[in-house]
Amino acid sequence: MDGVVTDLWLIGIGTGNPRHATLEAVQAIRNAALILLPRKGRDKADLADLRHTILRNCDSTAPIIEFDMPVRDDTLPYLQRVTKWHDEIATIWATAIKQSGLSGPVALLVWGDPGLYDSTLRIAARLQPAPRVRVVPGITALQALTAAHAIPFNTLNGAVTITTGRRLRDHGWPKGADTVAVMLDSQCSFRDLPPDGLHIWWGAFLGMPEQVLAAGPLATFAQPIVDLRATSRLRHGWIMDSYILRRQDMTTA
Amino acid sequence: MDGVVTDLWLIGIGTGNPRHATLEAVQAIRNAALILLPRKGRDKADLADLRHTILRNCDSTAPIIEFDMPVRDDTLPYLQRVTKWHDEIATIWATAIKQSGLSGPVALLVWGDPGLYDSTLRIAARLQPAPRVRVVPGITALQALTAAHAIPFNTLNGAVTITTGRRLRDHGWPKGADTVAVMLDSQCSFRDLPPDGLHIWWGAFLGMPEQVLAAGPLATFAQPIVDLRATSRLRHGWIMDSYILRRQDMTTA
Repeated sequence: MDGVVTDLWLIGIGTGNPRHATLEAVQAIRNAALILLPRKGRDKADLADLRHTILRNCDSTAPIIEFDMPVRDDTLPYLQRVTKWHDEIATIWATAIKQSGLSGPVALLVWGDPGLYDSTLRIAARLQPAPRVRVVPGITALQALTAAHAIPFNTLNGAVTITTGRRLRDHGWPKGADTVAVMLDSQCSFRDLPPDGLHIWWGAFLGMPEQVLAAGPLATFAQPIVDLRATSRLRHGWIMDSYILRRQDMTTA
Repeated sequence: MDGVVTDLWLIGIGTGNPRHATLEAVQAIRNAALILLPRKGRDKADLADLRHTILRNCDSTAPIIEFDMPVRDDTLPYLQRVTKWHDEIATIWATAIKQSGLSGPVALLVWGDPGLYDSTLRIAARLQPAPRVRVVPGITALQALTAAHAIPFNTLNGAVTITTGRRLRDHGWPKGADTVAVMLDSQCSFRDLPPDGLHIWWGAFLGMPEQVLAAGPLATFAQPIVDLRATSRLRHGWIMDSYILRRQDMTTA
């Protein structure tokens, strides 16, 4: 059965600070028989290097198989494009593991937490025969964001809607929401909201030495954040950011 | 300036698995000059012991000041009751630190993450003079829950509403939501929802050896979960649980 995945470990490693790794993650990385690692793209070299740093910090001795991420077919509609992309990645994983001839737990290092806006679980579900999947939780961008700003995620007994830039653009402010946390937004979709009465806490490269933060009333901070994001992206060649919006009448609750 | 808090560190320690601690949390615990620890109540002895286990695991040598949590005045309305309780806890912290005569960073170990349904940041905001507050993010119950069930938190490009049992009872299913994560629900408020078309993933003592999980269509799993929760609570003398509800037509997305 060598070269077949019977155990797949999806290990959350936080947002780019190697010290976001939990003791459970460190142990899982040490115990893995094989580590699958996406090869660095041109733009995110810092992130690929960071994965190697984390592996070194954990004294990992498991063989590492690097793979190239397939390119998304931008001519397809969104859902179809993502589905096809996930299929292709699953095939790459299966082939890489088979060629390795190794058996034992195969580990993938996942930015943030494997549950939150991450595809790894959906790709894992495509593997045949289905492996036992173990998820090791990790620090998400949203916790790194609230920690960096030292703010509560929710107001007292309040609800929080977590959504994407795409949904915010398509559907506007979620009905009845006091606090909205936005991820996967490369287009600064907060610009499309009526800013009055909203407060924003924004952050990029959360937990990393490059961390940038900005917070204030959306009416006055929207444009400065757009500019800051563009400058930071230019400087580093890539950017990962997220933000929280809260109705200002709720910010003291 | 001895006995005055200039630096307050709120350290997220996860949901009860000592290995949820991040490397950053371990380091912060080691570097703290003083640790403030709520004394164990009758019901949550396991949790207080766990805090001591974590401190030992981190080779913490800082003095520990234990304090009794004040009793909430159940005759007051909800917000007033909570506000008064937070005021009282802040006074207890300030007094304890003053009496210690110590200076340097004061650390509090917070279950889960200090940002998510936790009062520590609000209590810290009451201290005078205002200390520098540092937040170390931790694994939340929601990540421990999705990890234990090995499920994604969100559907593909979907939103998630995080809310409380109280809000779910008062306001019903959040408008337009596909996925709802519920915390602070001692009353199994999922029973009040029309169950048809909803799937539930429930968990208690997440990450602990006592962990209990259940998942299935709400129509058939609501009562079994109510019973399981009551039995588990009876056995351990306390319980902490949370759950995720998803519209079933979204569960494969």
